[in-house]
Amino acid sequence: MEEDLESLKRKIKEKGDTVRALKAQKADKSFVDVEVAALLKLKNQLTCITGEDGSSKSKTKLTLKTPKGTRDYNEKEMAIREKVFSTIISVFKRHGGVTIDTPVFELKEILAGKYGEESKLIYDLEDQGGEKCSLRYDLTVPFARFLAMNGTQYQNIKRYQIAKDFDVAGSYDPMVPDSEVIKIMCECLTELEIGTFIIKINHRKILDGIFEVCGVPEEKIRPISSAVDKLDKTPWEDVRKEMTEEKGLDPIVADHIGEYVKFKGGKELLERLFQDQKLLANANAKAGLNEMILLFQYLEVFGVLDKISFDLSLARGLDYYTGIIYEAVTELSGPPTLEDGTKVKRKTKKGTDEFDETTVGVGSIAAGGRYDNLVGMFANSKKGNIPCVGVSIGVERVFSILLQKYQLEQVKSNEVEVYVIAVADGLLEDRMKICAELWNAGIKAEFMYKIKPKLQPQFSVCDRDQIPFAVIIGKDELNCGQVKIKDMRSKEQGGGAGTSVKRSDMIAELKNRLGKL
Amino acid sequence: MEEDLESLKRKIKEKGDTVRALKAQKADKSFVDVEVAALLKLKNQLTCITGEDGSSKSKTKLTLKTPKGTRDYNEKEMAIREKVFSTIISVFKRHGGVTIDTPVFELKEILAGKYGEESKLIYDLEDQGGEKCSLRYDLTVPFARFLAMNGTQYQNIKRYQIAKDFDVAGSYDPMVPDSEVIKIMCECLTELEIGTFIIKINHRKILDGIFEVCGVPEEKIRPISSAVDKLDKTPWEDVRKEMTEEKGLDPIVADHIGEYVKFKGGKELLERLFQDQKLLANANAKAGLNEMILLFQYLEVFGVLDKISFDLSLARGLDYYTGIIYEAVTELSGPPTLEDGTKVKRKTKKGTDEFDETTVGVGSIAAGGRYDNLVGMFANSKKGNIPCVGVSIGVERVFSILLQKYQLEQVKSNEVEVYVIAVADGLLEDRMKICAELWNAGIKAEFMYKIKPKLQPQFSVCDRDQIPFAVIIGKDELNCGQVKIKDMRSKEQGGGAGTSVKRSDMIAELKNRLGKL
Repeated sequence: MEEDLESLKRKIKEKGDTVRALKAQKADKSFVDVEVAALLKLKNQLTCITGEDGSSKSKTKLTLKTPKGTRDYNEKEMAIREKVFSTIISVFKRHGGVTIDTPVFELKEILAGKYGEESKLIYDLEDQGGEKCSLRYDLTVPFARFLAMNGTQYQNIKRYQIAKDFDVAGSYDPMVPDSEVIKIMCECLTELEIGTFIIKINHRKILDGIFEVCGVPEEKIRPISSAVDKLDKTPWEDVRKEMTEEKGLDPIVADHIGEYVKFKGGKELLERLFQDQKLLANANAKAGLNEMILLFQYLEVFGVLDKISFDLSLARGLDYYTGIIYEAVTELSGPPTLEDGTKVKRKTKKGTDEFDETTVGVGSIAAGGRYDNLVGMFANSKKGNIPCVGVSIGVERVFSILLQKYQLEQVKSNEVEVYVIAVADGLLEDRMKICAELWNAGIKAEFMYKIKPKLQPQFSVCDRDQIPFAVIIGKDELNCGQVKIKDMRSKEQGGGAGTSVKRSDMIAELKNRLGKL
Repeated sequence: MEEDLESLKRKIKEKGDTVRALKAQKADKSFVDVEVAALLKLKNQLTCITGEDGSSKSKTKLTLKTPKGTRDYNEKEMAIREKVFSTIISVFKRHGGVTIDTPVFELKEILAGKYGEESKLIYDLEDQGGEKCSLRYDLTVPFARFLAMNGTQYQNIKRYQIAKDFDVAGSYDPMVPDSEVIKIMCECLTELEIGTFIIKINHRKILDGIFEVCGVPEEKIRPISSAVDKLDKTPWEDVRKEMTEEKGLDPIVADHIGEYVKFKGGKELLERLFQDQKLLANANAKAGLNEMILLFQYLEVFGVLDKISFDLSLARGLDYYTGIIYEAVTELSGPPTLEDGTKVKRKTKKGTDEFDETTVGVGSIAAGGRYDNLVGMFANSKKGNIPCVGVSIGVERVFSILLQKYQLEQVKSNEVEVYVIAVADGLLEDRMKICAELWNAGIKAEFMYKIKPKLQPQFSVCDRDQIPFAVIIGKDELNCGQVKIKDMRSKEQGGGAGTSVKRSDMIAELKNRLGKL
């Protein structure tokens, strides 16, 4: 044994030398890879041996955590999340959505240049056999890639993906799908029961028109738009500073923009902008304003105008939007307000660049817009382009709002309907047999994984897991072909002993009772 | 404009020089990162400008594909997949499963050393801010990490994850949860309607006992086990060659193993092994055989013994199993049989190392086993260990079996119940208003996104999407407060014009008809 260990250690040293030598010679990557794989295998063998005999155990301490920016969800949290997902999916299906799926990572070049300043948040994979890949950053760019690849079959599609993204692709009469997508947002947010919300709406063309009218040079329009996008979280002075100092905008131009972006309101704001002759003379602004008029008309038909705020400060960070843009916020979206009425300023956690979450609101809870050129960026010809409009529900943010609303301990995370209990003697195989009958009849059932469990712990499981009914068995009763069914929701355990039924009537009796729940 | 372009190109060159210089000086990564980000931003700006003015358009041709080893699923395929997922989840819930979720990537060190020879299939992420991460390879290791992190709350849990992995964690009486997990496998595979299947069962301790009795040196047990695992796809001669030539096993020992691993059968094989005094004298083999006896007893109670084949050649590739192991196969699992009865040998595609899929079967369609030490590998103390047993359903393989069964074109991928149609005049806003009524009543409805659609294309949508009912509106009828409801499943379009109902009765009438579907 010790000899094997020594020989293994020697082999590891030799293999390590080989790898280092190859790397020093800048040998072909495939050669190095083969040797590295062999080295890792030897090292694993070593861990197995030293782990098994225990003598030379030098287990390096693992850090038990999830990667930065990720987290686990436990079963109570997941019960809430699944309710969120099923609510959203039922709205999407109600509007004729079909679902597709795309891989969790894409070729790097597919994602490159689609997100503007947010690109730096993309995770790259290490090169594995000649392909550079990145984790997907949203579902929109992969959907556009899917459409470009399958364009001939998908001149139009309403698709949703992973219970959060809904998009309508295709050429239609203006603002018709756009207004339905906003109606879908309203239905989702209403049915998710997250409190009152407002949908801020703007139009990229109106915004671009304003920038042009104010005198922003063309190549600065997207960077300046990114700066405006921060207005929901950052005071105007800071945004102005970003425009002038970081992005080199003329301060007079910045102040001119500042006057426009403070406007928000409803139809009356739209009418006011139609009075602005300088704006109307701009082709972009005019086109945007005309579409906005139509949108308001359709949203009125759909009965959701009361949820809408036309907000000229809404810009959306992503580069790919070309038309209508929108973002839903709730009272919980902004940073918390202090007792004296001032807003808390966002702070970073000491020594890190992560925001201290107690000083931020959850931000927007759903957002989207029209992106008419993204599919075309992938397609070979102009004909390959497909205009799209969509919305993404911020399920993480919705979830954190709902977490505050529910008492996590009281959330039922399993769906068990019947617990099979033995009063004495264990009767393991009888409990198993009854459970198998229940399962085969489609009833959700469990039993305790013990040969001879005590009675009280079995009752406690029913309590803990909020299981409504118990089937209780004893030797004598089984011999007479009887079982007891007990309603566990009445707290008189031990007192009311349940109803005796014939074993052959058990399933029917339980189905009857479960049907009434 | 041209000046801006030139100045931008100059800036890119300068920034590129800075990056190269920093890299040459081996400057701190964070400095390089900042400059690289700035460079990328400039390059994106360039793409925007050259893209917009079109003159200097030098769009590099994108390869439109998904990364190697990944694929998209279209809406018809997803309809089948969702049926697969919902079937499996309903079985998991029936057995009291709760669901948790873990991130798609984990710290690299969490996954390292858990998968044996399969480790080379793990994707690593590029270092992003000091953490080395890898995409998860299965759901078992992340689950074990989750348990080790939250051990005090989870001394026992039945959990499922993403509709395919079910595990029971906790210390229980032997073989009780193991037999339920196998019962769950049977229910899933039966309800998925993929044809007849067999569950091959073996026990790691029996296998290790056999290896010990045959004279395999301890450090070679896992590698030899990996070789045996290939017996379902590879002839014995090739496996023997791997054992002796690649892994340096004495040929006499290999032949001795060869005699054992050809055994398969039911209870009678178990009885035969109990006669093997040499095997019974081995502690591992004896412990495994005793557990196997108990397992057969419980599987008989659960009524699934007819699905079971005790198979001594089953080894399972992954290192972490410690007890019972199992694998379900169907007729479609093996390589296709030629007309003369011989099996097709697996071939690789020309010039690649990918298998030609026409020469392979789908392999096992569900598999799992007991892994009693994996949580302990993450835990700080022996007390932190939690024994587990689980199963993973091979949803990809189940899906490809079902794909062969269904005619993809005839799969209904949307759930729309009612299509709202105008006979003339377009009536867009009226169609919108009626749809809003239907949606608000929970009815799945659509209308055509055109101001003035023709009648025939609207009927065609109902046909194409298999929509059962249409609400048909005309100006005169609307004025009288009436709409028509037409059953679209009867093919007499234009003929039977539908039933006129009062607008105020429309919802009730539709709900009544939909209830009868």
